[in-house]
Parts: sequence; C-alpha cells; structure tokens
Amino acid sequence: MLNEKQDALCAQSEWDFSSLRALFINRTLKRSPAVSHTQGLADVALEIMGKNGVQTDSVRLVDHTIAFGVYPDMTEHGWPKDEWPAIYPKVQAANVLIIGTPIWLGEKSSVCTMLIERLYAMSAQLNDEGQYAYYGKVGGCIITGNEDGAKHCSMNILYSLQYLGYVIPPQVDAGWIGEAGPGPSYLDEGSGDPENDFTQRNVTFMTWNLMHLARILRSQDGIPAHGNQRSKWDAGCRFNHPNPLYR
Amino acid sequence: MLNEKQDALCAQSEWDFSSLRALFINRTLKRSPAVSHTQGLADVALEIMGKNGVQTDSVRLVDHTIAFGVYPDMTEHGWPKDEWPAIYPKVQAANVLIIGTPIWLGEKSSVCTMLIERLYAMSAQLNDEGQYAYYGKVGGCIITGNEDGAKHCSMNILYSLQYLGYVIPPQVDAGWIGEAGPGPSYLDEGSGDPENDFTQRNVTFMTWNLMHLARILRSQDGIPAHGNQRSKWDAGCRFNHPNPLYR
Amino acid sequence: MLNEKQDALCAQSEWDFSSLRALFINRTLKRSPAVSHTQGLADVALEIMGKNGVQTDSVRLVDHTIAFGVYPDMTEHGWPKDEWPAIYPKVQAANVLIIGTPIWLGEKSSVCTMLIERLYAMSAQLNDEGQYAYYGKVGGCIITGNEDGAKHCSMNILYSLQYLGYVIPPQVDAGWIGEAGPGPSYLDEGSGDPENDFTQRNVTFMTWNLMHLARILRSQDGIPAHGNQRSKWDAGCRFNHPNPLYR
Amino acid sequence: MLNEKQDALCAQSEWDFSSLRALFINRTLKRSPAVSHTQGLADVALEIMGKNGVQTDSVRLVDHTIAFGVYPDMTEHGWPKDEWPAIYPKVQAANVLIIGTPIWLGEKSSVCTMLIERLYAMSAQLNDEGQYAYYGKVGGCIITGNEDGAKHCSMNILYSLQYLGYVIPPQVDAGWIGEAGPGPSYLDEGSGDPENDFTQRNVTFMTWNLMHLARILRSQDGIPAHGNQRSKWDAGCRFNHPNPLYR
Repeated sequence: MLNEKQDALCAQSEWDFSSLRALFINRTLKRSPAVSHTQGLADVALEIMGKNGVQTDSVRLVDHTIAFGVYPDMTEHGWPKDEWPAIYPKVQAANVLIIGTPIWLGEKSSVCTMLIERLYAMSAQLNDEGQYAYYGKVGGCIITGNEDGAKHCSMNILYSLQYLGYVIPPQVDAGWIGEAGPGPSYLDEGSGDPENDFTQRNVTFMTWNLMHLARILRSQDGIPAHGNQRSKWDAGCRFNHPNPLYR
Repeated sequence: MLNEKQDALCAQSEWDFSSLRALFINRTLKRSPAVSHTQGLADVALEIMGKNGVQTDSVRLVDHTIAFGVYPDMTEHGWPKDEWPAIYPKVQAANVLIIGTPIWLGEKSSVCTMLIERLYAMSAQLNDEGQYAYYGKVGGCIITGNEDGAKHCSMNILYSLQYLGYVIPPQVDAGWIGEAGPGPSYLDEGSGDPENDFTQRNVTFMTWNLMHLARILRSQDGIPAHGNQRSKWDAGCRFNHPNPLYR
Repeated sequence: MLNEKQDALCAQSEWDFSSLRALFINRTLKRSPAVSHTQGLADVALEIMGKNGVQTDSVRLVDHTIAFGVYPDMTEHGWPKDEWPAIYPKVQAANVLIIGTPIWLGEKSSVCTMLIERLYAMSAQLNDEGQYAYYGKVGGCIITGNEDGAKHCSMNILYSLQYLGYVIPPQVDAGWIGEAGPGPSYLDEGSGDPENDFTQRNVTFMTWNLMHLARILRSQDGIPAHGNQRSKWDAGCRFNHPNPLYR
Repeated sequence: MLNEKQDALCAQSEWDFSSLRALFINRTLKRSPAVSHTQGLADVALEIMGKNGVQTDSVRLVDHTIAFGVYPDMTEHGWPKDEWPAIYPKVQAANVLIIGTPIWLGEKSSVCTMLIERLYAMSAQLNDEGQYAYYGKVGGCIITGNEDGAKHCSMNILYSLQYLGYVIPPQVDAGWIGEAGPGPSYLDEGSGDPENDFTQRNVTFMTWNLMHLARILRSQDGIPAHGNQRSKWDAGCRFNHPNPLYR
C-alpha cells in the first residue's frame, strides 16, 4: 500500500514510537461493507504508523448507533440507545486522533459534526492536573471528496480539536478532491490518485508530524500543568505545582 | 493590567521561558494613534509573557506600507513600495506568533488576510533541515469585535498557521465579542470586559500554552526532521538523517 | 408574542401573502418536549407570517428517525428506517423554507448538516421545466446559541440553499448569541432577549423579505426557464421555450 | 469566447434585459497587465450579458489605490489617498454585481475582503424608502484557483452580499479549481478548462439567473418597502406606505 518513498521513510527511521496509540474515526455516511474512499486514504497513514510500532485502531462511526446530543451518555436524556460511551475509551487511550470525513456540498459530513459534538460533551471531564480531558494528545484529519472543500472541512475539524485541548502539529490535514467538478472518487479505478504525489506527500508529512509531536508530548508527560488548569482557575487561589516531581 | 489570578500565575511559575521571543502582529484597520481594541486584549498576553522573561515585540501592520501579493518582495513585481521584507525577520526570530484581528461582517480583516498571504509567500523558504520555514514555531490568535464571528476568524487563522508549519497548542484563540448586536468594544468604558472572567481565562490559558509548547519545541531543536522534509521528498532518495547529532 | 412594531407592520400591510406556504425545520439536538430556544425565535417569524395569511408548518427533525445518507430513501441502501421520504413533501409544498439550528462549538448542529445532506439528495429531481427541484422557492435561517458563531452557521446554510436552487432574499438570517462567553439562552429568564431590539429587528426584516420575494416569484411562476435548465443543457440542443404561455 | 450552447441560449432568448447594468469587480492580487485567470472566467459571464443587451463594466481593484477602513471616504480618517469614493457610483448604478477572487490558502484574497469592508461602509446609506442601500440588486461571484476552496470563498462572499441587502439568485457561484494539488490555472494552456463542461454550465446558469432576478426586481421597482425599512423601524411608528403609487 505504501509507495517507495513512504517505505524508505519507515525503514530509515531512528525514532521509537512504539509506546503510542492512534485512533482513526471514519465519518463516512456509508455503512459497511460499502467502500469508503476516506478509509482508503486513512489506511496509508495507519500503515505508516503501524510500521513504526504505533498501535492503531479504526472506528467507522456510522456502523454504530450514536445518539444526537451534547451529554456524555444520551440514554440518560431520553434516547433508547447510545453506543458513544463504549467508543469513548478508545479516544481516551489514543495519543493520536485522526478524523476522516467525506465532503458533501463543500462541508464535512453530519456524522463528522456529530462526533465533534460528542467529543465536546466529554471535554468537561478534567484530567488529574485539572486540565481539559484531551490535553497531551495530538489530532489531524483526512478529507476526501470529488469536488471541492477539503480546506474548509479541515479548518473546522482542526479548530474544534485545538479548542477541546488537542495539539495540532504542522500540516496535519491530508485530502483528495480530484479535478474540477464531479468525477471519480479516491479509490475508483482511473482516479489516478493513489499515485498523486501531492496527496501522498501530504498524508506522509501529516503522519510523521503526528507521531513526532505525540512522542514529544508523551516524553514530557503531556503539557505542563500551569496556567491552563480549569479547576485551579475556578478555585482562584494557589497555582504553583504541589508535585515535587515538577520542582 | 493583569488581574490577581494572572499575577499569581506569573509569580508562582517554575518554568524558564527566558530564551523565547514572541511577536504580536495586529491587523486592525485603524492606523496609530487610534485606539485598537485588539491591541488591548493582546497586551494582556504580552504582559504575561514579559513577566516570564519572554522577549516580546508588536507590529501594527496598517501603519506600514505593505504591498498585495504572494511573493517575498513585491517591489520586484511592479509595486513601488513594500515594507514586508523589513518586517519578516521579526517573524523569523519569533518562537511564538500571535495574530490579532478585528471582525467585520463576521470575517477577519483584509489586513489579516494580507498578512497570511505574505507569510505564505515565505513558506517556500526551507530551513536547514529542508522543512518549511515555520517549523518549530507555535502560533495563536486574538480576535475582538462587537458582534459575532470570533470562532470563524480563528478557524481560518489557526488553519493557515498549521498549514504553513506552525504548531497550534490547545485553546490558543482568545476573543471578545460582547453581547448580541452592535455595542461597546473591548476597551470602551462600560464594556465590562477587561473584567470578563471568560475572556481573561481564555487569554491566560492561550498565553501559557503558547509558552509551554514553544519551550518544549525549542528544547528539542524543533520538530524532528524525518518524514517532513520537502527537499528530501522532492529528491526522492535517502531520508535518514546525516547529522551525527541526531543519531 | 409580537412586539408593538411587529404587530403594527402586520396590521398595516397592503400585500396579499395568502397563497404562500412556509415550513420551519428545527435542527435542535433536543427532542420534544425539551425547550428549544431556536423554536422560540422561529415562532416570531411564524407568527408574523401567520398573521399575513401564510400557511405555516414546523418540523422538529430530531423527533423523527432520519437515516444518514445522500439518497432520497435510505431504506433502499441498508437502513432499517428513514422518515425523510415522509417529510420531503412538506419541503416541496413550501414556498418559504426556514432552517433553524443551535450552535455547538461555533458550528451548526449535526442534525442541521444531516438535513442539508437529505435536501441535497433530492436536488437531482428536476421540475417540469428541467430546473433543479428547489427553483422558485426562497430560504432563510434562524440561529441561536449562547456564545458565538451565528454568522458562520448562516454562511453555510444560506450557501447550501442557493446551491440547491433557493433564492436568498436580503438579510434572511436572524440570530441570538447573548454576551461574551457562556450564559443564558434565548428563552431563559433574564436573557433579556425577547426584548433585544437588534434580534427582533433582524427576525422581522427576515420574515418580510422572505414573504416579499416568495410572493414575487410565485407571481412570475418561478424563475424563468431559460439558461438554467439542467435537462436541456445536458441534451445540448434547442433552448427556446416551447410553451406558448411564455411567448 | 462562448461555446455553442452558450451562443444558442443568447440567440434563442425571449427576454429583454436591455435596461440592466452589471458590474464585475475583480479582486485578483495581480496588477494589470498581468493575466488574471479570474477575469478569464468572468469574461464568459460578461459576454453572455453583453449579448443580451446588458450594459457591463469591469473594475480591477488592485490597479487602484484603495485605503483600508470601514468608512465611506478614508481620506477623512488619515489616509493620504482613497479611490473608493470614485468607484462606488459604479456599484450604485449596477443592478448586477459579480465579485471575482482568486484563492490563496483556501481563502478569498485580501483585496476581496477589503472590497467587502468598503461595501459594508456604504450600507448605512439608506435608499429613498429607508431600506439599506443595496436593496433591489442581485449579486454573484466567480472564484478561480488551482487547488481547493471555491465553495468556502463563495459562502463568505454571498453571505456578505445578502447581509448588505443583495438578493442571491440560485447557483450564482461559478469557479474553477483544477485537479488535486497545485497545477495549471484557468487560462493556462493545457488546463483543459475553458472547455470543462461543469465550469461552463455553472457560469452559464449563474449569468442567466442573475439576469432573470435582476429583471424581475427592476420590474417591481425593487423589494417592496414594508417590514424592511431601517428608518421606519428606528422611528417606530407608522409603517404603511405613504406613496399612492404603491396603493
């Protein structure tokens, strides 16, 4: 699946990423087993990470019954079923989160928006330092469509991730939109794109930058807890760190 | 200028940020000496950084004659004057870049867009590792308006910064938009906002997260140069690092 | 529910809007009977239209089981249930469509995006003239939140509507976002907003502009069918109108 | 310049558009005489309108010295020169306004944003009926780039136009962005795009819809002045129309 350059980069790496976990959440509107072009592009990133020892996992959100809402568990708010609480631990465990979405009418999918709403619902859960739940993690996105709108979707997804507490490394949106007007999709025969150097370079740089930053943050035990602790700000008193490890 | 909590955070910090430099670029449409509300909010961030030993600088772009265009020096493309080449070294020297913009009709200012175009013009200049010019730096933004649109402006500014090579730490957009409809601006008497806890918390968290990530990246000599070097990707050959320092 | 100015405008109108139908689709994430602040603001528009003889209807989308997807009927694509085909005739019958959405994280709701996807799925159904299905109708939107993002949501919703074939009259987005930071929502006691002149003026102008344009378009039998017929463009031959009524 | 279908549509039209005026404002960053790809696509729209008797005009904004700001004449606010007041009468005279912009980093150009700011500055000038200055006019946009972002730019431009008082007819954004990644621009040899059926259909439908709506609005003397008059709303008294012409 990887091209020659991507293979060489894996073979020649001198970094150890084996303590990292990555999660790809696919927000295609198409249920399994229909082909997801978004998955096709994401698989390149997952393959690179896997070759570097990163433990990877994928969730296809539309295959699950997720309720609408902005609370952690919507069965407590009148919905008969909600599989989100079962998926969230995967998000918690992952150092790297990649969100994938198709483009419809120049916009990310409704399933993508729903995921952001549910991630948002969890952000009030602070970590042991009193920082928001997603501090210390990194995020990126993968966009596919056959027309236009990849940057527009990325703007919103990456904004939401940083708002929730993720670090956004450089150039962590990779996409494919084909030529002007409707046309073949990423995995369709003749799309020419699994070989498109622009798209392959973007997905490669994205993947390495996600791994580099995730490794660095992990080596620092996350983002230093000073000046960004919701619990201490609200308490309004002493901000210096009680943990001798940090002195 | 700082409130009690902000002062306490500075006094109680155990981190050393004194090797960092920060630059604030204000894209207000109003020339000096008119009051810039965007500057008013940015000054809080600059004051926090200054108290932590960060060397800070501000540029009010509209006070300079900047040409339109996407080349490094527009005087080579028919414009009589262009002060951008004289400002760019400040951007190069800064570990932290904060972009400030007012909101007009729900959108960042034209001066803000112009700055992004000129930053973009420089991105082809690779660093010694063959990475894009802005790798290893962190970016954030400050938005003020009296109506609506802060998140919309942030989405675009932060997206552009990560696209150019900046790392985006968590929650690095701080803004103030007042209540529904037109009304007083940030520094206007009675706006109530220099005391607004929401705005002050956001600008505080933003500033500390920018400092933390900038310090971490500086301690790592930037983002590891592997999998993200434009020059090596284009050459298409050996990616492992020739510099013994990194082995 | 209407204030004095809004009542006076209804009483003094000299136009006849009684042949029009209007549909409000609410994309709140909250199921009935929870209070929807978006509905609260929309009710002002519906009341004005009702007083002018417009036949109005409301749908709260989250109370129905709508499948994800971009086909007219998703039960033909593996979904067990899909109530969209039963709702669509209301859209077809309406001269005026108003879309309402709350704001989460600066973005319209996932239910709102889902509705646009389903409207899009129907756009290939051409009218008798070979124009897209929504030609001759007008659209607007109502946005409520307690922070920021009304214009950002409107940009996308109104863009999508015009893309699908709707005419967008002037100033047809009305919203309410309260003061900086989280706070009371539109219908909450003390929000001050049912009396906010800015919001009430916007919803009033929106409503009248929707009625004026819908009436004008109806009086013209829609948008003249020349230069905008998908069927004739694809056939590529004779474009002049065969219908003697139009000569 | 027109293809066979476009020529046939002009030849077979039965509508009279000869009382209309259209203005195209090009916000390319490139000064004359550099080739503007945006102009290349706009010329198709202008040619169609010209063949239908519409009086057309073009302004290339970057060739003029326009000051930054949100006041009608910035020389009254400290700027040495401002040619906007000399251009504005062309906007006032035009029934149809088409705004053209290139895409940089997924966003409309800074010159485009500047134009919107200056249009906004004029919106407080009410017409004889007390409506905002741009009521009764129609607007559209033309976007060209070689990567991605056409819909994102259109969303903002069309939103701004409707906010200012323009009517937005269906499908009035036409663009060209080529295939994935950087590549040839619209007028470059081998871009294949002057022949791209998707782009040509869009620009054709846009042009006809702009003409149809402009003609209809002109035939109605603009948008009926009731429920949308700023002056009367602020005065808060009698809204019925004093002008016997309207009774």
